[in-house]
Amino acid sequence: MDLKSYLKERADRINRALEGYLPDGEIIPHNLHQAMRYSVMAGGKRIRPVLMMASCEAAGSDSERVVPVACAMEMIHTYSLIHDDLPAMDDDDFRRGRPTCHKVFGEAMAILAGDALLTEAFVLLSAPATVQGLPHGAVRQIIQIMARNAGSFGMVGGQAVDIESEGKEVDIPTLEYIHTHKTGALILASVQAGALAGGADDRAFGHLTRYGEMVGLAFQIADDILDVVGDEKQLGKKVGVDEARGKATYPALFGLQEARRRAVELRDLAVAALEPFGAAAEPLRRIACYIVDRTC
Amino acid sequence: MDLKSYLKERADRINRALEGYLPDGEIIPHNLHQAMRYSVMAGGKRIRPVLMMASCEAAGSDSERVVPVACAMEMIHTYSLIHDDLPAMDDDDFRRGRPTCHKVFGEAMAILAGDALLTEAFVLLSAPATVQGLPHGAVRQIIQIMARNAGSFGMVGGQAVDIESEGKEVDIPTLEYIHTHKTGALILASVQAGALAGGADDRAFGHLTRYGEMVGLAFQIADDILDVVGDEKQLGKKVGVDEARGKATYPALFGLQEARRRAVELRDLAVAALEPFGAAAEPLRRIACYIVDRTC
Repeated sequence: MDLKSYLKERADRINRALEGYLPDGEIIPHNLHQAMRYSVMAGGKRIRPVLMMASCEAAGSDSERVVPVACAMEMIHTYSLIHDDLPAMDDDDFRRGRPTCHKVFGEAMAILAGDALLTEAFVLLSAPATVQGLPHGAVRQIIQIMARNAGSFGMVGGQAVDIESEGKEVDIPTLEYIHTHKTGALILASVQAGALAGGADDRAFGHLTRYGEMVGLAFQIADDILDVVGDEKQLGKKVGVDEARGKATYPALFGLQEARRRAVELRDLAVAALEPFGAAAEPLRRIACYIVDRTC
Repeated sequence: MDLKSYLKERADRINRALEGYLPDGEIIPHNLHQAMRYSVMAGGKRIRPVLMMASCEAAGSDSERVVPVACAMEMIHTYSLIHDDLPAMDDDDFRRGRPTCHKVFGEAMAILAGDALLTEAFVLLSAPATVQGLPHGAVRQIIQIMARNAGSFGMVGGQAVDIESEGKEVDIPTLEYIHTHKTGALILASVQAGALAGGADDRAFGHLTRYGEMVGLAFQIADDILDVVGDEKQLGKKVGVDEARGKATYPALFGLQEARRRAVELRDLAVAALEPFGAAAEPLRRIACYIVDRTC
Protein backbone atom coordinates (compact mmCIF):
# COMPACT_ATOMS: atom_id res chain seq x y z
CA MET A 1 0.00 0.00 0.00
CA ASP A 2 1.00 3.58 -0.67
CA LEU A 3 0.54 5.31 2.69
CA LYS A 4 0.48 8.82 1.30
CA SER A 5 -2.42 8.16 -1.07
CA TYR A 6 -4.16 6.03 1.60
CA LEU A 7 -4.02 8.92 4.10
CA LYS A 8 -5.18 11.40 1.47
CA GLU A 9 -8.07 9.23 0.30
CA ARG A 10 -9.25 8.74 3.89
CA ALA A 11 -8.88 12.41 4.82
CA ASP A 12 -10.87 13.35 1.69
CA ARG A 13 -13.62 10.91 2.68
CA ILE A 14 -13.80 12.46 6.18
CA ASN A 15 -13.76 15.99 4.78
CA ARG A 16 -16.69 15.24 2.47
CA ALA A 17 -18.65 13.77 5.37
CA LEU A 18 -17.83 16.68 7.70
CA GLU A 19 -18.95 19.09 5.00
CA GLY A 20 -22.35 17.40 5.12
CA TYR A 21 -22.61 17.10 8.90
CA LEU A 22 -21.65 20.65 9.84
CA PRO A 23 -24.48 23.19 9.93
CA ASP A 24 -24.55 25.44 6.87
CA GLY A 25 -23.06 28.91 7.39
CA GLU A 26 -26.23 30.35 5.82
CA ILE A 27 -28.37 29.04 8.68
CA ILE A 28 -28.92 31.25 11.77
CA PRO A 29 -26.83 31.92 13.79
CA HIS A 30 -24.58 32.62 10.77
CA ASN A 31 -21.45 33.66 12.66
CA LEU A 32 -21.56 30.69 14.97
CA HIS A 33 -21.99 28.20 12.14
CA GLN A 34 -19.33 29.94 10.07
CA ALA A 35 -16.90 29.84 13.00
CA MET A 36 -17.55 26.11 13.47
CA ARG A 37 -16.96 25.45 9.76
CA TYR A 38 -13.93 27.73 9.61
CA SER A 39 -12.07 25.75 12.25
CA VAL A 40 -13.17 22.25 11.27
CA MET A 41 -12.58 22.75 7.55
CA ALA A 42 -9.18 24.41 8.06
CA GLY A 43 -7.64 21.10 7.17
CA GLY A 44 -5.37 19.00 9.31
CA LYS A 45 -4.44 15.41 8.63
CA ARG A 46 -7.59 13.92 10.22
CA ILE A 47 -5.30 11.47 11.96
CA ARG A 48 -7.88 10.48 14.61
CA PRO A 49 -10.63 9.68 12.06
CA VAL A 50 -8.12 7.81 9.89
CA LEU A 51 -6.95 5.76 12.89
CA MET A 52 -10.57 5.00 13.76
CA MET A 53 -11.34 3.77 10.25
CA ALA A 54 -8.15 1.69 10.15
CA SER A 55 -8.96 0.16 13.54
CA CYS A 56 -12.45 -0.75 12.33
CA GLU A 57 -10.82 -2.54 9.39
CA ALA A 58 -8.33 -4.34 11.61
CA ALA A 59 -11.32 -5.65 13.56
CA GLY A 60 -12.61 -7.11 10.30
CA SER A 61 -15.28 -4.67 9.13
CA ASP A 62 -15.85 -2.13 6.39
CA SER A 63 -14.71 1.27 7.67
CA GLU A 64 -17.57 3.11 5.99
CA ARG A 65 -19.86 2.40 8.96
CA VAL A 66 -17.64 4.32 11.34
CA VAL A 67 -17.45 7.54 9.30
CA PRO A 68 -20.07 9.45 11.36
CA VAL A 69 -18.29 8.45 14.59
CA ALA A 70 -14.97 9.54 13.08
CA CYS A 71 -16.48 12.92 12.15
CA ALA A 72 -17.76 13.32 15.71
CA MET A 73 -14.23 12.65 16.96
CA GLU A 74 -12.82 15.32 14.64
CA MET A 75 -15.41 17.80 15.97
CA ILE A 76 -14.28 17.06 19.54
CA HIS A 77 -10.64 17.44 18.52
CA THR A 78 -11.34 20.75 16.76
CA TYR A 79 -13.30 22.15 19.71
CA SER A 80 -10.29 21.40 21.93
CA LEU A 81 -8.00 23.30 19.54
CA ILE A 82 -10.31 26.34 19.44
CA HIS A 83 -10.47 26.56 23.24
CA ASP A 84 -6.75 25.78 23.62
CA ASP A 85 -5.89 28.71 21.34
CA LEU A 86 -7.92 31.27 23.36
CA PRO A 87 -6.09 34.21 24.96
CA ALA A 88 -6.80 32.85 28.46
CA MET A 89 -5.27 29.50 27.46
CA ASP A 90 -2.32 29.18 25.02
CA ASP A 91 -3.06 32.50 23.28
CA ASP A 92 -2.18 31.31 19.77
CA ASP A 93 -2.75 33.45 16.67
CA PHE A 94 -2.23 30.77 14.05
CA ARG A 95 -3.41 27.21 13.64
CA ARG A 96 -3.21 24.93 10.62
CA GLY A 97 -1.65 27.85 8.73
CA ARG A 98 -4.50 30.35 9.24
CA PRO A 99 -5.55 32.81 11.92
CA THR A 100 -7.14 31.08 14.91
CA CYS A 101 -10.92 31.10 15.40
CA HIS A 102 -10.99 33.89 18.01
CA LYS A 103 -8.76 36.06 15.79
CA VAL A 104 -11.37 35.93 13.04
CA PHE A 105 -14.67 35.68 14.93
CA GLY A 106 -13.81 37.18 18.33
CA GLU A 107 -13.38 35.48 21.68
CA ALA A 108 -17.03 35.08 22.60
CA MET A 109 -17.89 33.40 19.29
CA ALA A 110 -14.81 31.15 19.53
CA ILE A 111 -15.85 29.94 22.99
CA LEU A 112 -19.37 29.25 21.67
CA ALA A 113 -18.11 27.59 18.47
CA GLY A 114 -16.03 25.20 20.59
CA ASP A 115 -18.99 24.50 22.86
CA ALA A 116 -21.26 23.89 19.87
CA LEU A 117 -18.79 21.52 18.18
CA LEU A 118 -18.40 19.42 21.32
CA THR A 119 -22.19 19.25 21.62
CA GLU A 120 -22.70 18.54 17.91
CA ALA A 121 -20.42 15.52 18.24
CA PHE A 122 -22.99 13.92 20.57
CA VAL A 123 -25.87 14.90 18.27
CA LEU A 124 -24.09 13.00 15.52
CA LEU A 125 -23.15 10.03 17.73
CA SER A 126 -26.76 9.53 18.83
CA ALA A 127 -28.35 10.05 15.41
CA PRO A 128 -30.44 7.09 14.15
CA ALA A 129 -28.35 6.81 10.96
CA THR A 130 -25.14 6.52 13.00
CA VAL A 131 -26.55 3.78 15.23
CA GLN A 132 -28.05 1.74 12.38
CA GLY A 133 -24.73 0.80 10.81
CA LEU A 134 -23.12 -0.36 14.05
CA PRO A 135 -23.21 -3.56 16.13
CA HIS A 136 -26.01 -3.68 18.72
CA GLY A 137 -25.11 -1.67 21.82
CA ALA A 138 -21.87 -0.38 20.31
CA VAL A 139 -23.00 3.25 20.20
CA ARG A 140 -23.55 3.46 23.94
CA GLN A 141 -20.08 2.06 24.56
CA ILE A 142 -18.57 4.40 21.95
CA ILE A 143 -20.24 7.46 23.51
CA GLN A 144 -19.02 6.35 26.93
CA ILE A 145 -15.43 5.89 25.73
CA MET A 146 -15.32 9.13 23.74
CA ALA A 147 -16.83 11.23 26.54
CA ARG A 148 -14.58 9.69 29.22
CA ASN A 149 -11.47 10.26 27.15
CA ALA A 150 -12.48 13.83 26.28
CA GLY A 151 -13.38 14.85 29.85
CA SER A 152 -11.70 15.65 33.15
CA PHE A 153 -10.12 12.18 33.37
CA GLY A 154 -8.94 12.48 29.77
CA MET A 155 -8.11 15.33 27.43
CA VAL A 156 -9.48 18.23 29.50
CA GLY A 157 -7.67 16.83 32.54
CA GLY A 158 -4.43 16.88 30.54
CA GLN A 159 -5.04 20.48 29.46
CA ALA A 160 -5.69 21.53 33.06
CA VAL A 161 -2.42 20.02 34.33
CA ASP A 162 -0.55 21.38 31.30
CA ILE A 163 -1.72 24.92 32.00
CA GLU A 164 -0.97 24.67 35.70
CA SER A 165 2.53 23.40 34.95
CA GLU A 166 3.60 26.24 32.64
CA GLY A 167 6.80 27.87 33.81
CA LYS A 168 7.22 25.32 36.63
CA GLU A 169 9.73 22.50 37.04
CA VAL A 170 7.80 19.41 35.96
CA ASP A 171 8.70 15.90 37.05
CA ILE A 172 8.46 12.85 34.82
CA PRO A 173 5.15 11.49 36.19
CA THR A 174 3.52 14.89 35.58
CA LEU A 175 4.89 15.06 32.04
CA GLU A 176 3.55 11.59 31.33
CA TYR A 177 0.19 12.53 32.83
CA ILE A 178 -0.05 15.53 30.52
CA HIS A 179 0.98 13.54 27.44
CA THR A 180 -1.20 10.50 27.98
CA HIS A 181 -4.20 12.70 28.77
CA LYS A 182 -3.95 15.80 26.60
CA THR A 183 -3.22 14.01 23.33
CA GLY A 184 -3.12 10.32 24.10
CA ALA A 185 -6.69 10.03 25.36
CA LEU A 186 -8.44 11.00 22.09
CA ILE A 187 -6.04 8.89 20.01
CA LEU A 188 -6.76 5.89 22.22
CA ALA A 189 -10.50 6.59 22.11
CA SER A 190 -10.34 6.76 18.30
CA VAL A 191 -8.73 3.34 18.06
CA GLN A 192 -11.13 1.87 20.63
CA ALA A 193 -14.22 3.34 18.95
CA GLY A 194 -13.05 1.86 15.64
CA ALA A 195 -12.59 -1.51 17.31
CA LEU A 196 -16.10 -1.47 18.79
CA ALA A 197 -17.63 -0.31 15.51
CA GLY A 198 -15.81 -3.12 13.77
CA GLY A 199 -17.25 -5.70 16.14
CA ALA A 200 -13.96 -6.58 17.89
CA ASP A 201 -14.21 -9.26 20.58
CA ASP A 202 -12.66 -8.67 24.02
CA ARG A 203 -9.27 -10.02 22.97
CA ALA A 204 -9.04 -7.97 19.80
CA PHE A 205 -10.27 -4.93 21.71
CA GLY A 206 -7.45 -5.48 24.22
CA HIS A 207 -4.79 -5.66 21.52
CA LEU A 208 -6.07 -2.57 19.76
CA THR A 209 -6.23 -0.73 23.10
CA ARG A 210 -2.55 -1.53 23.63
CA TYR A 211 -1.80 -0.21 20.14
CA GLY A 212 -3.80 2.96 20.85
CA GLU A 213 -1.97 3.64 24.10
CA MET A 214 1.46 3.28 22.52
CA VAL A 215 0.61 5.34 19.44
CA GLY A 216 -1.05 8.04 21.55
CA LEU A 217 2.05 8.63 23.62
CA ALA A 218 4.34 8.33 20.58
CA PHE A 219 2.23 10.96 18.83
CA GLN A 220 2.71 13.51 21.60
CA ILE A 221 6.45 12.85 21.89
CA ALA A 222 6.71 13.29 18.11
CA ASP A 223 4.76 16.54 18.40
CA ASP A 224 7.19 17.76 21.07
CA ILE A 225 10.17 16.84 18.87
CA LEU A 226 8.68 18.61 15.85
CA ASP A 227 8.26 21.74 17.96
CA VAL A 228 12.06 21.68 18.31
CA VAL A 229 13.23 20.48 14.89
CA GLY A 230 10.17 20.89 12.64
CA ASP A 231 9.51 23.24 9.75
CA GLU A 232 7.07 26.05 10.49
CA LYS A 233 5.65 26.14 6.96
CA GLN A 234 5.13 22.40 6.72
CA LEU A 235 3.46 22.21 10.16
CA GLY A 236 1.28 25.28 9.60
CA LYS A 237 2.06 26.59 13.07
CA LYS A 238 4.89 28.27 14.96
CA VAL A 239 7.68 26.09 16.29
CA GLY A 240 9.77 26.65 19.41
CA VAL A 241 6.70 27.78 21.36
CA ASP A 242 6.95 25.01 23.95
CA GLU A 243 10.38 26.15 25.06
CA ALA A 244 9.44 29.84 24.96
CA ARG A 245 6.52 29.08 27.28
CA GLY A 246 8.47 26.80 29.57
CA LYS A 247 6.16 23.91 28.66
CA ALA A 248 7.01 20.47 29.91
CA THR A 249 8.11 18.36 26.94
CA TYR A 250 10.00 15.13 26.34
CA PRO A 251 12.97 16.80 24.62
CA ALA A 252 13.20 19.37 27.44
CA LEU A 253 13.27 16.69 30.13
CA PHE A 254 15.21 13.91 28.40
CA GLY A 255 17.02 15.58 25.51
CA LEU A 256 16.26 15.13 21.81
CA GLN A 257 18.10 11.85 21.37
CA GLU A 258 16.38 10.09 24.25
CA ALA A 259 13.00 11.48 23.15
CA ARG A 260 13.52 9.97 19.69
CA ARG A 261 14.64 6.65 21.18
CA ARG A 262 11.47 6.55 23.29
CA ALA A 263 9.25 7.36 20.28
CA VAL A 264 10.85 4.56 18.26
CA GLU A 265 10.39 2.15 21.16
CA LEU A 266 6.70 3.04 21.44
CA ARG A 267 6.28 2.59 17.69
CA ASP A 268 7.73 -0.92 17.93
CA LEU A 269 5.49 -1.80 20.86
CA ALA A 270 2.48 -0.49 18.94
CA VAL A 271 3.35 -2.58 15.90
CA ALA A 272 3.93 -5.66 18.07
CA ALA A 273 0.43 -5.32 19.54
CA LEU A 274 -1.02 -5.73 16.02
CA GLU A 275 0.52 -9.15 15.45
CA PRO A 276 -2.74 -11.14 15.79
CA PHE A 277 -4.47 -9.13 13.02
CA GLY A 278 -2.21 -9.96 10.07
CA ALA A 279 -2.75 -8.04 6.84
CA ALA A 280 -5.94 -6.34 8.07
CA ALA A 281 -3.82 -4.20 10.41
CA GLU A 282 -1.33 -3.08 7.78
CA PRO A 283 -2.67 0.53 7.69
CA LEU A 284 -2.42 0.78 11.50
CA ARG A 285 1.20 -0.44 11.32
CA ARG A 286 2.11 2.06 8.64
CA ILE A 287 0.43 4.94 10.50
CA ALA A 288 2.44 4.19 13.67
CA CYS A 289 5.63 4.32 11.61
CA TYR A 290 4.53 7.50 9.81
CA ILE A 291 3.87 9.29 13.12
CA VAL A 292 7.29 8.47 14.52
CA ASP A 293 9.49 8.41 11.45
CA ARG A 294 8.80 11.99 10.37
CA THR A 295 10.69 13.10 13.49
CA CYS A 296 13.94 11.34 12.54
CA MET B 1 -49.36 19.17 47.73
CA ASP B 2 -47.09 21.76 49.34
CA LEU B 3 -45.01 23.07 46.43
CA LYS B 4 -42.29 24.58 48.56
CA SER B 5 -41.47 21.33 50.36
CA TYR B 6 -41.89 19.37 47.09
CA LEU B 7 -39.32 21.60 45.35
CA LYS B 8 -36.95 21.38 48.30
CA GLU B 9 -37.24 17.61 48.60
CA ARG B 10 -36.53 17.19 44.86
CA ALA B 11 -33.64 19.66 44.84
CA ASP B 12 -32.12 17.83 47.83
CA ARG B 13 -32.43 14.51 46.01
CA ILE B 14 -30.65 15.97 42.96
CA ASN B 15 -27.96 17.58 45.12
CA ARG B 16 -27.19 14.28 46.83
CA ALA B 17 -26.92 12.53 43.47
CA LEU B 18 -24.75 15.30 41.96
CA GLU B 19 -22.47 15.05 44.98
CA GLY B 20 -21.89 11.42 44.08
CA TYR B 21 -21.55 11.89 40.32
CA LEU B 22 -19.09 14.79 40.33
CA PRO B 23 -15.40 13.85 40.47
CA ASP B 24 -13.90 14.30 43.93
CA GLY B 25 -11.85 17.48 44.40
CA GLU B 26 -9.07 15.32 45.85
CA ILE B 27 -8.60 13.53 42.53
CA ILE B 28 -6.10 14.96 39.99
CA PRO B 29 -6.49 17.49 38.43
CA HIS B 30 -7.55 19.00 41.77
CA ASN B 31 -8.26 22.53 40.58
CA LEU B 32 -10.34 21.37 37.65
CA HIS B 33 -12.46 19.06 39.77
CA GLN B 34 -12.80 21.68 42.49
CA ALA B 35 -13.92 24.26 39.92
CA MET B 36 -16.53 21.85 38.55
CA ARG B 37 -17.86 21.15 42.05
CA TYR B 38 -17.71 24.80 43.07
CA SER B 39 -20.07 25.85 40.30
CA VAL B 40 -22.43 22.87 40.33
CA MET B 41 -22.79 22.78 44.10
CA ALA B 42 -23.29 26.55 44.39
CA GLY B 43 -26.97 25.86 44.70
CA GLY B 44 -29.71 27.05 42.42
CA LYS B 45 -33.26 25.76 42.38
CA ARG B 46 -32.48 22.75 40.13
CA ILE B 47 -35.58 23.69 38.16
CA ARG B 48 -34.59 21.66 35.07
CA PRO B 49 -34.00 18.41 37.02
CA VAL B 50 -37.20 18.98 39.00
CA LEU B 51 -39.17 19.51 35.78
CA MET B 52 -37.66 16.34 34.33
CA MET B 53 -38.63 14.26 37.35
CA ALA B 54 -42.14 15.74 37.37
CA SER B 55 -42.52 15.02 33.64
CA CYS B 56 -41.42 11.42 34.18
CA GLU B 57 -44.16 11.12 36.83
CA ALA B 58 -46.77 12.70 34.56
CA ALA B 59 -45.91 10.00 32.01
CA GLY B 60 -46.75 7.43 34.67
CA SER B 61 -43.39 6.30 36.05
CA ASP B 62 -41.34 6.57 39.22
CA SER B 63 -39.06 9.60 38.88
CA GLU B 64 -36.14 7.86 40.59
CA ARG B 65 -35.06 6.31 37.27
CA VAL B 66 -34.48 9.67 35.66
CA VAL B 67 -32.22 11.09 38.39
CA PRO B 68 -28.93 10.43 36.51
CA VAL B 69 -30.36 12.08 33.38
CA ALA B 70 -31.53 15.02 35.49
CA CYS B 71 -28.04 15.40 36.96
CA ALA B 72 -26.55 15.37 33.46
CA MET B 73 -28.95 18.19 32.53
CA GLU B 74 -27.86 20.22 35.54
CA MET B 75 -24.21 19.74 34.52
CA ILE B 76 -25.02 21.08 31.04
CA HIS B 77 -26.91 24.02 32.53
CA THR B 78 -24.03 24.81 34.91
CA TYR B 79 -21.41 24.63 32.13
CA SER B 80 -23.45 27.18 30.17
CA LEU B 81 -23.50 29.52 33.19
CA ILE B 82 -19.73 29.24 33.70
CA HIS B 83 -19.00 30.08 30.06
CA ASP B 84 -21.69 32.77 29.96
CA ASP B 85 -20.07 34.54 32.93
CA LEU B 86 -16.59 34.70 31.32
CA PRO B 87 -15.06 38.14 30.64
CA ALA B 88 -15.33 37.61 26.87
CA MET B 89 -19.04 36.82 27.26
CA ASP B 90 -21.28 38.51 29.89
CA ASP B 91 -18.36 39.29 32.25
CA ASP B 92 -20.24 38.58 35.47
CA ASP B 93 -18.56 38.57 38.88
CA PHE B 94 -21.36 36.96 40.87
CA ARG B 95 -23.65 34.00 40.31
CA ARG B 96 -25.96 32.25 42.76
CA GLY B 97 -24.69 34.66 45.42
CA ARG B 98 -20.99 33.81 45.17
CA PRO B 99 -18.05 34.86 43.00
CA THR B 100 -18.21 33.31 39.52
CA CYS B 101 -15.98 30.36 38.61
CA HIS B 102 -13.37 32.39 36.71
CA LYS B 103 -13.12 34.86 39.59
CA VAL B 104 -12.09 32.04 41.92
CA PHE B 105 -10.18 29.65 39.64
CA GLY B 106 -9.04 31.90 36.80
CA GLU B 107 -10.26 32.13 33.23
CA ALA B 108 -8.41 29.12 31.82
CA MET B 109 -9.69 26.80 34.53
CA ALA B 110 -13.25 28.15 34.16
CA ILE B 111 -13.22 27.45 30.42
CA LEU B 112 -11.96 23.92 31.10
CA ALA B 113 -14.40 23.34 33.98
CA GLY B 114 -17.27 24.23 31.63
CA ASP B 115 -15.90 21.95 28.92
CA ALA B 116 -15.47 19.12 31.42
CA LEU B 117 -19.00 19.48 32.81
CA LEU B 118 -20.54 19.38 29.34
CA THR B 119 -18.50 16.27 28.57
CA GLU B 120 -19.23 14.64 31.93
CA ALA B 121 -22.95 14.95 31.20
CA PHE B 122 -22.52 12.53 28.29
CA VAL B 123 -20.36 10.18 30.37
CA LEU B 124 -23.24 10.01 32.81
CA LEU B 125 -25.93 9.68 30.13
CA SER B 126 -24.17 6.71 28.50
CA ALA B 127 -23.25 4.93 31.74
CA PRO B 128 -24.63 1.36 32.04
CA ALA B 129 -26.41 2.20 35.31
CA THR B 130 -28.24 5.12 33.66
CA VAL B 131 -29.39 3.01 30.72
CA GLN B 132 -30.55 0.06 32.82
CA GLY B 133 -33.36 1.90 34.53
CA LEU B 134 -34.87 3.33 31.33
CA PRO B 135 -37.16 2.00 28.59
CA HIS B 136 -35.34 0.26 25.73
CA GLY B 137 -33.85 2.75 23.29
CA ALA B 138 -34.83 5.75 25.42
CA VAL B 139 -31.25 6.75 26.22
CA ARG B 140 -30.31 7.24 22.59
CA GLN B 141 -33.35 9.48 22.09
CA ILE B 142 -32.61 11.36 25.31
CA ILE B 143 -28.98 11.99 24.31
CA GLN B 144 -30.17 13.16 20.89
CA ILE B 145 -32.71 15.56 22.38
CA MET B 146 -30.40 16.93 25.05
CA ALA B 147 -27.48 17.47 22.64
CA ARG B 148 -29.69 19.07 19.98
CA ASN B 149 -31.24 21.45 22.47
CA ALA B 150 -27.87 22.34 23.99
CA GLY B 151 -26.08 22.96 20.66
CA SER B 152 -26.01 25.50 17.85
CA PHE B 153 -29.70 24.97 17.06
CA GLY B 154 -30.56 25.29 20.73
CA MET B 155 -28.99 26.97 23.76
CA VAL B 156 -25.60 27.86 22.24
CA GLY B 157 -27.39 29.28 19.20
CA GLY B 158 -29.43 31.49 21.53
CA GLN B 159 -26.29 32.68 23.32
CA ALA B 160 -24.64 33.53 20.00
CA VAL B 161 -27.57 35.66 18.82
CA ASP B 162 -27.88 37.23 22.27
CA ILE B 163 -24.24 38.33 22.27
CA GLU B 164 -24.43 39.64 18.72
CA SER B 165 -27.53 41.64 19.58
CA GLU B 166 -26.11 43.50 22.58
CA GLY B 167 -26.46 47.25 22.22
CA LYS B 168 -28.42 46.86 18.96
CA GLU B 169 -32.09 47.50 18.23
CA VAL B 170 -33.64 44.05 18.34
CA ASP B 171 -36.88 43.14 16.60
CA ILE B 172 -39.50 40.81 18.03
CA PRO B 173 -38.56 37.70 16.00
CA THR B 174 -34.94 38.04 17.17
CA LEU B 175 -36.03 38.46 20.79
CA GLU B 176 -38.17 35.36 20.52
CA TYR B 177 -35.32 33.44 18.89
CA ILE B 178 -33.02 34.34 21.79
CA HIS B 179 -35.59 33.42 24.42
CA THR B 180 -36.77 30.14 22.95
CA HIS B 181 -33.19 29.04 22.33
CA LYS B 182 -31.06 30.43 25.15
CA THR B 183 -33.31 29.33 27.99
CA GLY B 184 -36.30 27.60 26.44
CA ALA B 185 -34.34 24.82 24.73
CA LEU B 186 -32.96 23.17 27.89
CA ILE B 187 -36.30 23.52 29.70
CA LEU B 188 -38.07 21.84 26.81
CA ALA B 189 -35.38 19.13 26.63
CA SER B 190 -35.80 18.51 30.37
CA VAL B 191 -39.53 17.94 30.01
CA GLN B 192 -39.04 15.78 26.91
CA ALA B 193 -36.29 13.66 28.51
CA GLY B 194 -38.56 13.08 31.50
CA ALA B 195 -41.38 12.03 29.18
CA LEU B 196 -39.16 9.53 27.34
CA ALA B 197 -37.73 8.15 30.58
CA GLY B 198 -41.28 7.75 31.86
CA GLY B 199 -42.27 5.74 28.80
CA ALA B 200 -44.64 8.34 27.31
CA ASP B 201 -46.35 7.30 24.08
CA ASP B 202 -46.34 9.66 21.07
CA ARG B 203 -49.49 11.46 22.18
CA ALA B 204 -48.34 12.01 25.74
CA PHE B 205 -44.94 13.09 24.43
CA GLY B 206 -46.67 15.65 22.21
CA HIS B 207 -48.66 17.12 25.10
CA LEU B 208 -45.62 17.32 27.36
CA THR B 209 -43.65 18.93 24.54
CA ARG B 210 -46.31 21.62 24.28
CA TYR B 211 -46.08 22.15 28.04
CA GLY B 212 -42.27 22.38 27.82
CA GLU B 213 -42.37 24.96 25.05
CA MET B 214 -44.81 27.20 26.91
CA VAL B 215 -43.02 26.93 30.25
CA GLY B 216 -39.62 27.48 28.64
CA LEU B 217 -40.66 30.78 27.13
CA ALA B 218 -42.56 31.82 30.27
CA PHE B 219 -39.44 31.10 32.31
CA GLN B 220 -37.30 33.49 30.26
CA ILE B 221 -39.93 36.24 30.28
CA ALA B 222 -40.17 35.82 34.06
CA ASP B 223 -36.37 36.06 34.29
CA ASP B 224 -36.46 39.29 32.28
CA ILE B 225 -39.16 40.72 34.54
CA LEU B 226 -37.23 39.78 37.69
CA ASP B 227 -34.20 41.59 36.31
CA VAL B 228 -36.36 44.74 36.41
CA VAL B 229 -38.42 44.26 39.58
CA GLY B 230 -36.60 41.47 41.47
CA ASP B 231 -34.68 41.56 44.73
CA GLU B 232 -30.91 41.22 44.38
CA LYS B 233 -30.45 39.32 47.63
CA GLN B 234 -33.23 36.87 46.96
CA LEU B 235 -32.03 36.16 43.41
CA GLY B 236 -28.35 35.88 44.37
CA LYS B 237 -27.32 38.00 41.38
CA LYS B 238 -27.33 41.61 40.29
CA VAL B 239 -30.53 43.07 38.85
CA GLY B 240 -30.89 45.77 36.22
CA VAL B 241 -27.99 44.32 34.22
CA ASP B 242 -30.06 43.63 31.10
CA GLU B 243 -30.96 47.29 30.72
CA ALA B 244 -27.42 48.46 31.52
CA ARG B 245 -26.10 46.21 28.75
CA GLY B 246 -28.79 47.09 26.26
CA LYS B 247 -29.95 43.46 26.22
CA ALA B 248 -33.08 42.58 24.33
CA THR B 249 -35.79 41.70 26.85
CA TYR B 250 -39.55 41.37 26.94
CA PRO B 251 -40.10 44.29 29.32
CA ALA B 252 -37.79 46.49 27.20
CA LEU B 253 -39.67 45.74 23.99
CA PHE B 254 -43.24 45.44 25.28
CA GLY B 255 -43.24 47.14 28.68
CA LEU B 256 -43.64 45.44 32.05
CA GLN B 257 -47.41 45.10 31.95
CA GLU B 258 -47.51 43.40 28.56
CA ALA B 259 -44.60 41.13 29.53
CA ARG B 260 -46.54 40.00 32.60
CA ARG B 261 -49.70 39.46 30.55
CA ARG B 262 -47.74 37.29 28.11
CA ALA B 263 -46.18 35.25 30.92
CA VAL B 264 -49.61 34.58 32.44
CA GLU B 265 -50.96 33.58 29.03
CA LEU B 266 -48.11 31.10 28.53
CA ARG B 267 -48.69 29.70 32.02
CA ASP B 268 -52.33 29.04 31.15
CA LEU B 269 -51.43 27.40 27.84
CA ALA B 270 -48.88 25.21 29.63
CA VAL B 271 -51.45 24.13 32.21
CA ALA B 272 -54.01 23.44 29.49
CA ALA B 273 -51.58 21.09 27.72
CA LEU B 274 -51.51 18.92 30.86
CA GLU B 275 -55.24 18.23 30.83
CA PRO B 276 -54.95 14.56 29.67
CA PHE B 277 -52.69 13.61 32.58
CA GLY B 278 -54.98 14.34 35.51
CA ALA B 279 -53.51 14.20 39.00
CA ALA B 280 -50.17 12.77 37.82
CA ALA B 281 -49.35 16.18 36.30
CA GLU B 282 -50.16 18.22 39.39
CA PRO B 283 -46.47 19.01 40.14
CA LEU B 284 -45.96 20.23 36.55
CA ARG B 285 -49.03 22.48 36.87
CA ARG B 286 -47.83 23.94 40.13
CA ILE B 287 -44.31 24.55 38.79
CA ALA B 288 -45.68 26.48 35.79
CA CYS B 289 -47.63 28.70 38.19
CA TYR B 290 -44.64 29.09 40.51
CA ILE B 291 -42.42 30.26 37.65
CA VAL B 292 -44.84 32.92 36.51
CA ASP B 293 -46.53 33.99 39.73
CA ARG B 294 -43.34 35.11 41.49
CA THR B 295 -43.16 37.94 38.95
CA CYS B 296 -46.54 39.43 39.86
